Amino acid sequence: MVVLEKVLHFKLNYNNTGMSVMEMSHRSKPYEEIIGNAESLLREIMNIPENYKVLFLQGGASSQFAMIPFNLAKNGKADYVNTGNWSSVAIKEGKRFTDLKVVASSEDKTFSYIPELNKSEFRADADYFHYTVNNTIYGTRFRDYPETGSVPLVCDASSSILSEVYDVSKFGIFYAGAQKNIGPAGVTVVIIREDLVGNALPNTPVMFDYATHVKAGSMHNTPPTYGIYLAKLVFEWVKAKGGVAEIQKINEAKAKLVYDAIDESKLFTAHVKSEKDRSLMNIPFFATNEELDDKFIKECTALGLTTLKGYRTVGGMRASMYNGMPIEGAKALAEQIKKFDMANK
Amino acid sequence: MVVLEKVLHFKLNYNNTGMSVMEMSHRSKPYEEIIGNAESLLREIMNIPENYKVLFLQGGASSQFAMIPFNLAKNGKADYVNTGNWSSVAIKEGKRFTDLKVVASSEDKTFSYIPELNKSEFRADADYFHYTVNNTIYGTRFRDYPETGSVPLVCDASSSILSEVYDVSKFGIFYAGAQKNIGPAGVTVVIIREDLVGNALPNTPVMFDYATHVKAGSMHNTPPTYGIYLAKLVFEWVKAKGGVAEIQKINEAKAKLVYDAIDESKLFTAHVKSEKDRSLMNIPFFATNEELDDKFIKECTALGLTTLKGYRTVGGMRASMYNGMPIEGAKALAEQIKKFDMANK
Repeated sequence: MVVLEKVLHFKLNYNNTGMSVMEMSHRSKPYEEIIGNAESLLREIMNIPENYKVLFLQGGASSQFAMIPFNLAKNGKADYVNTGNWSSVAIKEGKRFTDLKVVASSEDKTFSYIPELNKSEFRADADYFHYTVNNTIYGTRFRDYPETGSVPLVCDASSSILSEVYDVSKFGIFYAGAQKNIGPAGVTVVIIREDLVGNALPNTPVMFDYATHVKAGSMHNTPPTYGIYLAKLVFEWVKAKGGVAEIQKINEAKAKLVYDAIDESKLFTAHVKSEKDRSLMNIPFFATNEELDDKFIKECTALGLTTLKGYRTVGGMRASMYNGMPIEGAKALAEQIKKFDMANK
Repeated sequence: MVVLEKVLHFKLNYNNTGMSVMEMSHRSKPYEEIIGNAESLLREIMNIPENYKVLFLQGGASSQFAMIPFNLAKNGKADYVNTGNWSSVAIKEGKRFTDLKVVASSEDKTFSYIPELNKSEFRADADYFHYTVNNTIYGTRFRDYPETGSVPLVCDASSSILSEVYDVSKFGIFYAGAQKNIGPAGVTVVIIREDLVGNALPNTPVMFDYATHVKAGSMHNTPPTYGIYLAKLVFEWVKAKGGVAEIQKINEAKAKLVYDAIDESKLFTAHVKSEKDRSLMNIPFFATNEELDDKFIKECTALGLTTLKGYRTVGGMRASMYNGMPIEGAKALAEQIKKFDMANK
């Protein structure tokens, strides 16, 4: 990843403070500047409206699965879409705190498509509507925004934040673990419309109350300082690349290379058939049998194309093409798919 | 901090994996080895008994303040000692989930001493007993272990873990945010006796249930991978230094230098009078008036002795002498105290 080179060159003496970022107190002026810049850069590159708060939290999307009902479920009612592994985990946790309705699901076909959303299934008195916009394991992606009217739309974008343009104004909460497209594991970005802050249920742990973190500017306790610093470097990188719209073009080009190679081959099939449902980030695919899958993975690994093994519930291969992967990586993979197809038919 | 030099030299190609630690999947073999080694090293240097689990979590001590009652308070009853800022925050949160009794407090004298513990105040049917072993802001430290019989002893050691030898077998839970003596903010170490795992109350968020993390080896979701890697480097450093007992000797020598300089001066007074209550990590002290405090801080800053300003509720100065501070730092500070005392009397 390009940003890592900058990290290698980070100085023990950050901007003449006499300290590295890692040693800095989060209450120091230089650190306040870092977290402040991280926020304004993210606001700029995602075009976040002023009536939204930006939080840098801990605990991953998995903590959001509980935080969301604790903060929004005043009537104890929530609608969810089930499009894969993380949706299912979110639903399981949401059910413990709300009367939860699964309004659409693609579970019947191993989550290989984006289900049609039937608005008559939505409940007008739901406290919120939750979905996972990109499904890491199954390689699907929502292109359209669910139309939920006045019910706040809550979106888990852990595996696709900053990979394509999102209209933040459509959402009540837009959240993501940082470990895919932002980089450092251990930072969770939460973008929340300000009227949704301050309504936590009485039994909400202080650390699970969005109001705690809004009030303290994400510094109620020591934040993951170094991770936020790395996030800031990534936001700078996105901006330097020309912004999220430009990154999206690159990601579309990368994805096209790999999907085309798969679709044009005799040997390989993509898990997701419908072009409009296909993820730009994650491409699960299979050869005609498991032996060929293994052979392909082995040959790729030898070429430096690593971590291609698919998730156990899908099998086969999964190419993850996060922002950090350059187009050369996609070209190399597409090339290898073509070669393997020629050699093994 | 010594370990930081290692970080500067960490390779983009970690152990020939072709990846830096920062890019590695937490499910990869090389990363599993890193987190496994971090745990065994911590077990070794802290001499953690086999019937204790070691967890690397997120959310800081502040999340533990709620996690502890969610997991232990089956009768909804807990005893706490109030010895400062973080104790007070823990108590405030604990009160929201339990019938909480403050069994001892030093609030009457700005937390400048460790209160006597009167066992007749302890409740035999409490679910746990909570205290803060080292008080960062007020500079006090418990030397003796509270005797709580069969009531699990829960200890927040965020500002003193690895600074001196602790007998883990005395505790039900021993926890610490990593940002002081371990280094990376965003990692929380929880050491928990195994019989205390698996009793979470029904409304506990999955991420707040210790059983979730025990079952998954701290990898229920993506852990703060890079922070845990840095923690491992620090544990190696402690071991190379000769272990925690040796580190303790250095810390005692460092603290003695500074306390002696303060006590022998005409101008300076330590916030904590009683020698046995004094922290090895944090030394709040004052000159005879605020102008002199300011002058002293200014002169120190010019010499590279930074972040000496005391917390607002105490005022004056506060020297923080975590493991990362070499004895030369303590010598320089002691020297400066002496010089300033001579020059300003």
